[in-house]
Amino acid sequence: MPEIMITELDAVSPDFPGQLQNLLAWNESEDLDIHRQVLDIIADVRRNGDKAVIAYTNRFDHRQVNSAAELELDQNSLKSAFGSIPTDQANALKTAANRIRSYAEHQKIESWDYTEADGTVLGQKITPLDRVGLYVPGGKAAYPSSVLMNAIPAKVAGVGELIMVVPMPKGECNPLVLAAAYLAGVDRIFTVGGAQAVAALAYGTETIPAVAKIVGPGNIYVATAKKLVFGQVGIDMIAGPSEILIICDGLTNPDWIAMDLFSQAEHDENAQAILISPDKAYLAAVKQSINNLLPTMERAEIIRTSLSTRGAFITVKDLQQAAEVANTIAPEHLELSVENPEAFSQHIHHAGAIFMGRYTAEALGDYCAGPNHVLPTSSSARYSSPLGVYDFQKRTSLINCSKAGAKELGKTASVLARGESLFAHARSAEYRL
Amino acid sequence: MPEIMITELDAVSPDFPGQLQNLLAWNESEDLDIHRQVLDIIADVRRNGDKAVIAYTNRFDHRQVNSAAELELDQNSLKSAFGSIPTDQANALKTAANRIRSYAEHQKIESWDYTEADGTVLGQKITPLDRVGLYVPGGKAAYPSSVLMNAIPAKVAGVGELIMVVPMPKGECNPLVLAAAYLAGVDRIFTVGGAQAVAALAYGTETIPAVAKIVGPGNIYVATAKKLVFGQVGIDMIAGPSEILIICDGLTNPDWIAMDLFSQAEHDENAQAILISPDKAYLAAVKQSINNLLPTMERAEIIRTSLSTRGAFITVKDLQQAAEVANTIAPEHLELSVENPEAFSQHIHHAGAIFMGRYTAEALGDYCAGPNHVLPTSSSARYSSPLGVYDFQKRTSLINCSKAGAKELGKTASVLARGESLFAHARSAEYRL
Repeated sequence: MPEIMITELDAVSPDFPGQLQNLLAWNESEDLDIHRQVLDIIADVRRNGDKAVIAYTNRFDHRQVNSAAELELDQNSLKSAFGSIPTDQANALKTAANRIRSYAEHQKIESWDYTEADGTVLGQKITPLDRVGLYVPGGKAAYPSSVLMNAIPAKVAGVGELIMVVPMPKGECNPLVLAAAYLAGVDRIFTVGGAQAVAALAYGTETIPAVAKIVGPGNIYVATAKKLVFGQVGIDMIAGPSEILIICDGLTNPDWIAMDLFSQAEHDENAQAILISPDKAYLAAVKQSINNLLPTMERAEIIRTSLSTRGAFITVKDLQQAAEVANTIAPEHLELSVENPEAFSQHIHHAGAIFMGRYTAEALGDYCAGPNHVLPTSSSARYSSPLGVYDFQKRTSLINCSKAGAKELGKTASVLARGESLFAHARSAEYRL
Repeated sequence: MPEIMITELDAVSPDFPGQLQNLLAWNESEDLDIHRQVLDIIADVRRNGDKAVIAYTNRFDHRQVNSAAELELDQNSLKSAFGSIPTDQANALKTAANRIRSYAEHQKIESWDYTEADGTVLGQKITPLDRVGLYVPGGKAAYPSSVLMNAIPAKVAGVGELIMVVPMPKGECNPLVLAAAYLAGVDRIFTVGGAQAVAALAYGTETIPAVAKIVGPGNIYVATAKKLVFGQVGIDMIAGPSEILIICDGLTNPDWIAMDLFSQAEHDENAQAILISPDKAYLAAVKQSINNLLPTMERAEIIRTSLSTRGAFITVKDLQQAAEVANTIAPEHLELSVENPEAFSQHIHHAGAIFMGRYTAEALGDYCAGPNHVLPTSSSARYSSPLGVYDFQKRTSLINCSKAGAKELGKTASVLARGESLFAHARSAEYRL
């Protein structure tokens, strides 16, 4: 196999900021044709309900569905899917589900209020979403871990009804995905996918109930549909390619770091894996490990393409500079393979998740450590957060003015409303004086 | 003046669900021409920076700016704006700012972590956004209260730098808006507006720094620009027309309720004000109050159009049914003008803010009660929340596995990764066994 080519950058170079921007640049080009197709599908599902959903499902998924009732899987089929998988997989799913649930319990936000001296009560009331839709891709890229990560926080939040949609191309379905849905407590499952599934969840059909929010990953049709129904329902983020940034002091086994980079790169050709170290010789050692290990990998070609087109090795003058680069990148996954990761992590302001210390491989977090693997990509960790229980809860402000409180507040409101020429506001407040 | 015509519905009627959907329907039609203009402005600002911003500002705001430095207002001009306004307005702004700040302090989310038996540490770290942009409309519809409501939660969150943009058409600026910016602690102000201001905040120019998130209301150009830069930066919600739903048991002075409906309707012709009561005679009394009071209102024509095209009176069989209708509407503002509002509010699951009791006019909440007046519109209270401190904070997951923890977790991760055919994930975990 030819040696791998990986971009090498030096953070001390004056050209570095521009080079880093080029490395990170990711523009999902808007495909107007897909946009138009998805708009048509949504309009059709809104107009024709089940009939449209069945037609698209038969056409795109090569199925022969006659009635909408056939689209739903009952709880028994989930239970028997769980019963059918090997014991080690069933136990691993159970361990993961329990740990994800324990962590999620810490994220619940609670209602609060306080009473002022004059008896006025102010607060915020927290309620779960009534009904949530979870999109799960079908076919090859069927990930049971993704079912657990999306469904469990919703159930912990107290969502009344969690509806999963998963396409069943040619009638085939991954039993691990159904087993995960069983463990996570999914309430109903419909075997539909694509833009038609998103439209059905957003607007409802005779058979598929409308939800308040749609979460979960999907292909470009699903992502476009989610963008287009946003407003009618809430959505989670539209994810870009997955990324890892590893900062290493040069003292971790280079094979370990090479494999951590691979674990990101194997997702797809556009995944991005970057390694930063102050130790140039160490970067060379990791490169050697990559060349040694790559031929042994099942997805060697995907890994090679990802690392050579989007990967990078960055030399820094010290770990402080590494932290600065990390804050610029705001990576989805940040591995701190350094001696004192707790102290070092204080310098990190922007990252989806931080994997601290030489033993914390990102893969542990992807499956079973507990925190969510749905994380902000494409530098959006600058302003957004991992998926969590809080994404399935919402807040309502509470204001209960006492007679005395209304009198005091009314004077202030009246002055400000008149300053904004909103006289009905002013008079409404003045009535309570 | 002619009697006002207001839609009257009866929740007991079998046609009611469909009638209610028609009443609430609000489709912001996508204007492709505006979309294209805004795309061009964004591309121009990305390419030409300050030069483009100056050109658009001179053209759209009828100004003669020569250098980008002229676009910035220094802190002294804010301070002197505050000094220039009448004492009663200065005091009202101060009271409002203090109350908004006190309430916001209750919303701060805090970091947490926990240590497992084998020494593995899991947690979530909370950090404020580095830099936030606040859009403030200029000209006539300049609302100082909106500056306080958007800026104060950001400052309470600990945002490093808060950048306000406000257009200054023909060089004119509302001193109340600048005074509010001074009180709220805005760090820098640029007198630019429109799509060019949003583009400058999203991508940065030589003079205007790039931010992580843009909040604040604006016209259709601003809203379109915010949608188009989303992903590059975070944004708050794109607001629809403002709405109020009032539930009254029939025992509140009908003039008060009429004026509360007016206070929503005076915002604009598309604003929506709805009154629900089990007491038909009371609804007639409020209608009488509306007809009596309307001729005395400064914005009578806007109010009349809003109430007659989008307003409604709904008769229900009892307050329980009123709560059900409210949950279907999921209103931005919900006034519970009833005898025991605390008990009744337990039945409300979806609302942006609840104003409880006869003394709590919505106007008090709009200005100075404390809770934010930026609230989810168009039924989005089903899945989203008032603007708050939490919108200016973000979370990072923390995972620090002990050697023993990595050994246990590694086994589970390995089984699940192999189940998903992600072999690099599996081997990365297995290295730590």
